[in-house]
Amino acid sequence: MKKMLLLYLVIIGAYVLYALNFFYGKSQSAGAGDSAALVGSLDEKYVMVTFQSGIDYWKSVIKGFEDAAQVLGVSVEYRGSTQYDVREQVTVLEQVIAQKPAGIALTVMNPEALTPSIDKAVDAGIPVVLFDSGAPDSKAYSLLATDNYNAGVTAARTMARLIGGKGEVGVVTLPNQLNHQERTNGFRDTIRSEYPEMTIVAVEDGKGDRIVSRDAAIAILDQYPDVKGIFNTDAVGGVGVADAVRLRQRQNQVKIVAFDTDKVTLDMVRQGEIDATLAQGTWNMGYWSLLYLFHLHHGLVTPDSGQTADASPLPVYVDTGISVVTRENVDHYYVK
Amino acid sequence: MKKMLLLYLVIIGAYVLYALNFFYGKSQSAGAGDSAALVGSLDEKYVMVTFQSGIDYWKSVIKGFEDAAQVLGVSVEYRGSTQYDVREQVTVLEQVIAQKPAGIALTVMNPEALTPSIDKAVDAGIPVVLFDSGAPDSKAYSLLATDNYNAGVTAARTMARLIGGKGEVGVVTLPNQLNHQERTNGFRDTIRSEYPEMTIVAVEDGKGDRIVSRDAAIAILDQYPDVKGIFNTDAVGGVGVADAVRLRQRQNQVKIVAFDTDKVTLDMVRQGEIDATLAQGTWNMGYWSLLYLFHLHHGLVTPDSGQTADASPLPVYVDTGISVVTRENVDHYYVK
Repeated sequence: MKKMLLLYLVIIGAYVLYALNFFYGKSQSAGAGDSAALVGSLDEKYVMVTFQSGIDYWKSVIKGFEDAAQVLGVSVEYRGSTQYDVREQVTVLEQVIAQKPAGIALTVMNPEALTPSIDKAVDAGIPVVLFDSGAPDSKAYSLLATDNYNAGVTAARTMARLIGGKGEVGVVTLPNQLNHQERTNGFRDTIRSEYPEMTIVAVEDGKGDRIVSRDAAIAILDQYPDVKGIFNTDAVGGVGVADAVRLRQRQNQVKIVAFDTDKVTLDMVRQGEIDATLAQGTWNMGYWSLLYLFHLHHGLVTPDSGQTADASPLPVYVDTGISVVTRENVDHYYVK
Repeated sequence: MKKMLLLYLVIIGAYVLYALNFFYGKSQSAGAGDSAALVGSLDEKYVMVTFQSGIDYWKSVIKGFEDAAQVLGVSVEYRGSTQYDVREQVTVLEQVIAQKPAGIALTVMNPEALTPSIDKAVDAGIPVVLFDSGAPDSKAYSLLATDNYNAGVTAARTMARLIGGKGEVGVVTLPNQLNHQERTNGFRDTIRSEYPEMTIVAVEDGKGDRIVSRDAAIAILDQYPDVKGIFNTDAVGGVGVADAVRLRQRQNQVKIVAFDTDKVTLDMVRQGEIDATLAQGTWNMGYWSLLYLFHLHHGLVTPDSGQTADASPLPVYVDTGISVVTRENVDHYYVK
């Protein structure tokens, strides 16, 4: 009897073994086909390189990069020049290239200065994608950034909603910078084509400075007593515009649309001093930069895509979008 | 002794069982960290919906969609109206919505007709992304398509390379369709800003028809004996332009830049009758559409992205890019 029992146990054990093997084998292939291709290894290190590395603006980009690393099971590292110093950024990028990482996500302070290093990395087989600001003549595979013209379109529609689609509005901007020109153009074109009862009465230079922007807004408020709203196109000036409106006690008459989500701007949105600010899709920049680099590193897009050496195997440009921050949703936009 | 042998066998069996269990458990988690997030299941079905479903143009889009399904381990299905018939496309889309798929990738024949069904799907919790042509006022999360203006820029640079950067050029286009206007504008603006020794002498209507395009090209060739090149902006007319150049025996004097990669166009590129044609990033449209739908279905982009309900959790627009097809690389562009 005992012999038989043991024999049964062996047979049962072998069966369980077989079943278990079958089950695990089955569950793996059902889950992932023959190719769990989007699963990396922690040995793979992707590096993000910025400039002015301490500013709030990058925090959400880094969060997106880290979230993608978690999803893919790979490692990431974050480097940057501490100052707004292009030579320092080139030095940092060169150091990163020397480490031979699996890929580099880079935001470009100055295209002329950085293009040679970008091309050097790509020529050495290190994939490079750009985010937030690009280098059009470089060999980088893709740019993930805000379409600034579209951001201006959103600003115009937001302003129209705030002032009921009619009245005079002003703009405080940096008229000599391309991205700010594009924001202003999108704002202007949309008002012309969609809001015939709105007029832009003034476009002033705020120089990206709180005090200068405040004075520019005061000039608009004093010259145009009926002005209903001011759109500020940069991350710093919106707070200055709010200062101006408070100083001139026009809080109930003038609506403000600001840009970006610096803490002081969000605080003013929460307090109702700024009516809306435009948040860039910074998380998307970081997240999809890493997805793209992973695809390049693993050769997932080149071989069967019908593309050739003269074309980027990836989408060349991604508009990471804009969302409108108001008092109702402002709490979501503070960086955790 | 036999008893002991059996006992050993049981113990060894149990150990192997344990080791196997440990090994499979380990290999799964080692491969994917704690989160093999980009691994789906074959129960998940994503559907692509087109119109004129038989045409060559979609083949590479479908290939991209299928390649992504392979990578993610999910199922895909392909549906479409057989004709260029918007009511049929609406009917097909409504049938697909009724199946409650994991996500829908749709190309939009007519935005007004399809927007209500798109919004209905999104409201029912079915993610929708658009490719190739969009519906700007719909609730779809993203559009993945060619930036037609940029395509025109590439056409101008390609033409400049072919004719040595100087001389008269003509355009055969569909002047009443927005995407073709954008291609022509990109072409014109680039010649004006980058090639001061080139001039556009004629922009003719080819009506997207081989014979009409041939006659339009003949008119240009006869009126401008020094014309050095013709850019045709649609998928069909380039072949007609080549017919015209052959009929007038100007093969060695007039360069042709065509659009898209229909088989007959590719054959003419191979034979040297068309000098270059522009290939859209159709594989990318299909591949990244499915990646986006997968992220939406699995809630990978919404929760921690700092985005709110009024914003798309994904990049709103992706320029899937253009590549230049010439005799050297034409073989890569035939659909396998």
